[in-house]
Amino acid sequence: MTDMTWNARAEAKRSSVLESIPKAWRLDSIPSVDELPNDLKFVAEQLGPDEREITEMELPALISAVASGRLSARRVTEAYAHRAAVAHQLTNCLSEFMLQSALKEADRLDQHLAKTGKTVGPLHGIPVSLKDQFFVDGYETSVGFIAWLDGPASREDEAGIVPILRAAGAVFHVKTNVPTSTMCVETVNNVMGKTVNPYNRAYSPGGSSGGEGALLAQRGAPIGVGTDIGGSVRVPCSLTGLWGLKCSPHRLPPAGARTPIEGQISIPSVIGPMADSLDSLEFLTKLTLNARPWEVDSEVVEMPWRPYDVPEKLVFGIVLDDGVVLPQPPVRVAIEKLADKLRDAGHEVITFEPPSHAQALNIWLSTMTQTGGNKIHALCEETGEPLIQEVAEIMGASAGDREVMSAEEVWEMAAERIAYTAEYDKAWNATAEATQCRRPMDALLMPTTAAVGWKRGDFNYLGMFLANTGYTPVGNVLQYTGISMPVAKAEPIPKEHRDEFYNDMDEAIYNLCM
Amino acid sequence: MTDMTWNARAEAKRSSVLESIPKAWRLDSIPSVDELPNDLKFVAEQLGPDEREITEMELPALISAVASGRLSARRVTEAYAHRAAVAHQLTNCLSEFMLQSALKEADRLDQHLAKTGKTVGPLHGIPVSLKDQFFVDGYETSVGFIAWLDGPASREDEAGIVPILRAAGAVFHVKTNVPTSTMCVETVNNVMGKTVNPYNRAYSPGGSSGGEGALLAQRGAPIGVGTDIGGSVRVPCSLTGLWGLKCSPHRLPPAGARTPIEGQISIPSVIGPMADSLDSLEFLTKLTLNARPWEVDSEVVEMPWRPYDVPEKLVFGIVLDDGVVLPQPPVRVAIEKLADKLRDAGHEVITFEPPSHAQALNIWLSTMTQTGGNKIHALCEETGEPLIQEVAEIMGASAGDREVMSAEEVWEMAAERIAYTAEYDKAWNATAEATQCRRPMDALLMPTTAAVGWKRGDFNYLGMFLANTGYTPVGNVLQYTGISMPVAKAEPIPKEHRDEFYNDMDEAIYNLCM
Repeated sequence: MTDMTWNARAEAKRSSVLESIPKAWRLDSIPSVDELPNDLKFVAEQLGPDEREITEMELPALISAVASGRLSARRVTEAYAHRAAVAHQLTNCLSEFMLQSALKEADRLDQHLAKTGKTVGPLHGIPVSLKDQFFVDGYETSVGFIAWLDGPASREDEAGIVPILRAAGAVFHVKTNVPTSTMCVETVNNVMGKTVNPYNRAYSPGGSSGGEGALLAQRGAPIGVGTDIGGSVRVPCSLTGLWGLKCSPHRLPPAGARTPIEGQISIPSVIGPMADSLDSLEFLTKLTLNARPWEVDSEVVEMPWRPYDVPEKLVFGIVLDDGVVLPQPPVRVAIEKLADKLRDAGHEVITFEPPSHAQALNIWLSTMTQTGGNKIHALCEETGEPLIQEVAEIMGASAGDREVMSAEEVWEMAAERIAYTAEYDKAWNATAEATQCRRPMDALLMPTTAAVGWKRGDFNYLGMFLANTGYTPVGNVLQYTGISMPVAKAEPIPKEHRDEFYNDMDEAIYNLCM
Repeated sequence: MTDMTWNARAEAKRSSVLESIPKAWRLDSIPSVDELPNDLKFVAEQLGPDEREITEMELPALISAVASGRLSARRVTEAYAHRAAVAHQLTNCLSEFMLQSALKEADRLDQHLAKTGKTVGPLHGIPVSLKDQFFVDGYETSVGFIAWLDGPASREDEAGIVPILRAAGAVFHVKTNVPTSTMCVETVNNVMGKTVNPYNRAYSPGGSSGGEGALLAQRGAPIGVGTDIGGSVRVPCSLTGLWGLKCSPHRLPPAGARTPIEGQISIPSVIGPMADSLDSLEFLTKLTLNARPWEVDSEVVEMPWRPYDVPEKLVFGIVLDDGVVLPQPPVRVAIEKLADKLRDAGHEVITFEPPSHAQALNIWLSTMTQTGGNKIHALCEETGEPLIQEVAEIMGASAGDREVMSAEEVWEMAAERIAYTAEYDKAWNATAEATQCRRPMDALLMPTTAAVGWKRGDFNYLGMFLANTGYTPVGNVLQYTGISMPVAKAEPIPKEHRDEFYNDMDEAIYNLCM
């Protein structure tokens, strides 16, 4: 295997994933993007009526159908696997198709239920998709690197949320595509190639949990798990109409997820559920916390799910323009409409003037690039694959392009992050002076991305990153909890004329308006 | 001021602290160490009967005496200040004597109570001592550096626990001595000099919260606050017969404490109460959490004080020898006696074989020295003061003596810490297989220090650090909660002959046995 060139290895991997899809589920021909920009209807039509019904059920109904024995885990697994297979052929959203082991597990669960009359847990027989960072027994975890096509993981490699979901009865049928290293908001790598957005296949699903977003939007799984270090759960959710949760670090177990930036602890990556409803996010988060992950991993805070008494009248802050990139008009209008609805419902909405988001972006970028992407470059060099341009813009194309910082700079940057957080905390609390109820805002509403969408190559990738995720990395820098909510679909709005721009990125995003 | 030599500035500071002590409280002559090794009785005898009674009350009684108006805050403050002043003259335990502002605050509290009939909070009129890392309005925060004799802090500099205690009614009457930079387990600096142990003034009180330990042991305050990054609360508590709590990071608010290793986030310093009883630790911790510090500082975990259902029969692990340094026989015997008592009380005690504590020490040292002590050396260079030998052993005597690590090494070390913690978590949980109740151990009992005590200069200081704190830094590396309990006074035990040693430190500690 190691004597093969990197592209031969990639091709072998792609073929192996495709061949693991049963022949009956393979499409005779794949419609072109021009023929079929939006594939959602098409995907549904490839399924039998019962498969379609199963894959379009809401999660609670699906769970009780399997728990009651009305639907077998096998039938549900087959339905979702079929839909995921079709989705993959249209959007290239998978990195592993795990049908054989999934069916084996589904059968085991069906037998357990038949024998004992009991489910193994609250996810009994429910397919769950995982971003290709999670180690799963029997499958590879490439994170987009050819070098990490290094053989299957074992049950011992599984850690964190994977064994928790397993114990709850989850069936892992697919792993989903990521950008090489996960360090950008696109989804492309030399192993599986580029994932596209099912709403418009000419467009990007965002990233880095973009395979997850594309799959879930096509209902190839009822729920999935991504990771977020700068927007990687929230951005793809925003671009594919999903809900996504980014908890604070140390809340959900981070173990068992492969990363080439191990040891970067100032702005930790967090795992997070992605799904079609807020209830599903709550369900998966609650389930994970109910498993008491801190008993296995002391890095996880011992904090069970806590019900909150939500005040009847809430106070929301909004940021419509962070001074880095002005959101495109449809994005701004969506937030404004949301604000109006909240006001109509009796809540208070104030405009929040945040501390510099440009500084937050700078802290984010400086922190992530401290080692000059050393491990990322080493992994590429191992096989000779070129680093994808999106990550190269951030980390340099090869070792040495970015300076390796000194420990002094690392400490300074960590201290700056803490000071910035203190400043933001203070600004947040100071909103109490601006609200009618004299309470600081309960939550802050911002765009997830400044652009409605983009195609790969629309502008330079660092710009794309900064422009589109200018609104998400600040949440990671602050380590606040964040959620991506699909509040609206973008409506075509006449372009508003602007002569002056904050910077090149801002101008690029403006020019992208159609 | 800045034209003065560093030792002139230090002398001015020492005089100013001494002169802030009322003449009536100054001793005509200070007994020598030989004349008075143990000063505890002597200190008490310097006080009037009512002062003595007040300063020997248990905290709850003291609190209710002030709250009920039986004792005024002024009288209590004067009594403790008097005792602290005497303690300082015998052990050099203070860095700031804050009588004037303390009396002003006490008067304000007395007036408040007289006027409203209510206390301002649960610490109404109670003197609280603070390690000289905490910013307090009107006083300097040198952390042992001449360069940080840079003028008084303001009310705005106060952060974290200080405003919480203030709001609860605490009266800050003293700040206590530390080693320069706090980065060793001694208490000595060029500003105030060396603090000694009131139980035997030839000996060290440990450190870095050694001024705090010496003061509290002499009852110069009913309770105090220290900080712990490698044992700095626990070691002095162990050497002065106190209780000390080291929480996990992010539990108690870390803000408002000055440090020359800002931005080192892999093994964070934590603040912790020190007192003469477990109840007092609980009281201060609960009070701090009841103030909801996370509402001001989002770096603090939103976790209120939680009552626990403690199982009737507990399981304790013990480590009598970590393979780095064999504890001296009196230390070992104390732990063995404790284990026997626990067994007698119906609890289970097992021997725990921990993952390598040598590795934990190496992670600790490598992490703390990543920047080669750059800020510490810069602060010394600013005034020309030489770095104290204890810290120089760890950080080098001057800039350039220790290599500044690269960001790659910083990340590797952080990853190693996390992996080590995972290994320890696993070993901890695996004890379930060795216990009768099939539950993993509830707590782990270890010596706090391997030596019963030491004099400054007894052995090389890195050795002293490693030897005596070999048992405490592992708790910081793991970020577990730890507590120092005064379970026994060292009893003279015949030296046990040993021919073989783990290493030089181990031999030095052995040779120190009397």
